[in-house]
Amino acid sequence: MTSKIRIGIAGYGNLGRGVQAAIAKNPDMELVGVYTRRDPQDLQLASPAPRFAIADLQQHTGQIDVLILCGGSKSDLPEQGPKYAALYNTVDSFDTHARIPEYFETVDVPAKAAGKTALISSGWDPGMFSINRVYGETLLPDGETYTFWGRGLSQGHSDAVRRVPGVAAGVQYTMPSQEAIDRVRAGERPALGTREKHQRECFVVLEDGADAEAVREAIVTMEHYFDQYDTTVEFIDEQTLAAEHSAMPHGGFVIRSGNTSDAQKQVIEYSLALGSNPEFTSSVLVAYARAVHRMNQAGITGAQTVYDVAPGLLSPKSAAQLRAELL
Amino acid sequence: MTSKIRIGIAGYGNLGRGVQAAIAKNPDMELVGVYTRRDPQDLQLASPAPRFAIADLQQHTGQIDVLILCGGSKSDLPEQGPKYAALYNTVDSFDTHARIPEYFETVDVPAKAAGKTALISSGWDPGMFSINRVYGETLLPDGETYTFWGRGLSQGHSDAVRRVPGVAAGVQYTMPSQEAIDRVRAGERPALGTREKHQRECFVVLEDGADAEAVREAIVTMEHYFDQYDTTVEFIDEQTLAAEHSAMPHGGFVIRSGNTSDAQKQVIEYSLALGSNPEFTSSVLVAYARAVHRMNQAGITGAQTVYDVAPGLLSPKSAAQLRAELL
Repeated sequence: MTSKIRIGIAGYGNLGRGVQAAIAKNPDMELVGVYTRRDPQDLQLASPAPRFAIADLQQHTGQIDVLILCGGSKSDLPEQGPKYAALYNTVDSFDTHARIPEYFETVDVPAKAAGKTALISSGWDPGMFSINRVYGETLLPDGETYTFWGRGLSQGHSDAVRRVPGVAAGVQYTMPSQEAIDRVRAGERPALGTREKHQRECFVVLEDGADAEAVREAIVTMEHYFDQYDTTVEFIDEQTLAAEHSAMPHGGFVIRSGNTSDAQKQVIEYSLALGSNPEFTSSVLVAYARAVHRMNQAGITGAQTVYDVAPGLLSPKSAAQLRAELL
Repeated sequence: MTSKIRIGIAGYGNLGRGVQAAIAKNPDMELVGVYTRRDPQDLQLASPAPRFAIADLQQHTGQIDVLILCGGSKSDLPEQGPKYAALYNTVDSFDTHARIPEYFETVDVPAKAAGKTALISSGWDPGMFSINRVYGETLLPDGETYTFWGRGLSQGHSDAVRRVPGVAAGVQYTMPSQEAIDRVRAGERPALGTREKHQRECFVVLEDGADAEAVREAIVTMEHYFDQYDTTVEFIDEQTLAAEHSAMPHGGFVIRSGNTSDAQKQVIEYSLALGSNPEFTSSVLVAYARAVHRMNQAGITGAQTVYDVAPGLLSPKSAAQLRAELL
């Protein structure tokens, strides 16, 4: 019998919790440790698992097949990615698109030197959406690709709303324009500006005595965040916010429309409707951990992206089984 | 400057014509020959290209990087697949799902012996849909996958209809059930029988003196192709066939619905809306020819499927360029 793939989790926020849930759905894997910067004894886990201080990762190299890095892209991963790729096979969800090439290099060097395999920027965007952008443009080279996000809760824009004076609490949803999607699906290949592709929708709880009209104005004119979009602001009470806006749904569409000849139009569409953005991202990370384990066993080392991973490597099934059952 | 990938086309029906059109959309490729069982001088090409007798493939091994096999799955590919995999890197669209494992073996042996790379069963189903079935079940292991086809004209099933004795000409349309699709998108995970998901609709022109009832019976009972579906057969004249049934639209949906935890539902959907089924299939074959060429250069030989091909290998862009532009 094959032994299970031993997974470690570095960081236990929404993503770490999601990875723990995803491992439970994959019988060929086991969670061997959750590593935290907090005192491990204080860490409340969703279900029982060994807890360790993150410093213990220096000593546990023989006990983990793949370490999943569940920290954020702004400050955690730029430090942890290169550090742990020198010790473990790793998977992460680095999602600052503009910095991916630079991050790739900083992870590639230590991973290669240590004979480790480090998959960066996995999840759904970057991740599954990126894969579909490449499939789209290679299968229909004469065409246009459109990525739409939402309806989904955006953390960065929600933070921006909450910084406005007079706002006690609030969330922001990104909404794709149905009219724009319909035009793309019809194969029109429209040139779409920022305002035409997405709208932004805010739900705000006001502080006592705050001026609603001033708050609305401050939000919709906020530079970079909202001024380029059509934004609606709805004022609600705290109870409604808790009851109706505590989930983290997201999703979107990657649509490629193109011509294979003058006469023939073709449309490829990939879409996600996610009840929980962090849980789906985590589930992707766990599937890629399986691929990373196999690639390392096959001698493929260094930094990798989803573009380097053949689809069959993600599945617990053998190549022969996939051919017989799913091809 | 890198030299172009030299492509040969074996068989010049709808698929061969589509491959020629697709090569024209990929500037890193060139068409070096169309090989036919007809007299090459009689072959009318959509645009000029060298024409050869198919027997010439025995002598042209130094002139072609990848040979795209454009014959049918029922009788052409079972003979041509193994034969040409001993001489060339090949790509084909073998689409008799039940026979893929057996076909894989017959191609794998000569390809490995000759150090060639042979990608079988490419296109959209098998092909892109197969990839999405694997992504779906690996990203959401606790879930169900549903594939719906159409409404569309199926080349394989139309060929099968036309081989029935007494049939002069004919086409077959596959029709998905909208009710079934709606239930799947809603995350119901319904148990759907083959018969509940699709119907098949045939339009047939009879040969003079043919027995309509015998033809209908031969079609609706045909193993693998029709016996598991509700199939209607309508007899029409040649003029109606030409006027109303000469386009070749197709498409469909692969939907995975699943849970990442008890509370959280996630839905992944991949869909194709194809103006021309053979042109899209051809476009997929051509993208995979690029990957096959690269895999052979990297020493990966033998039979392969789309599950073995990393997405980045399909693109003319370098890995660094893909990371910077599309990840």
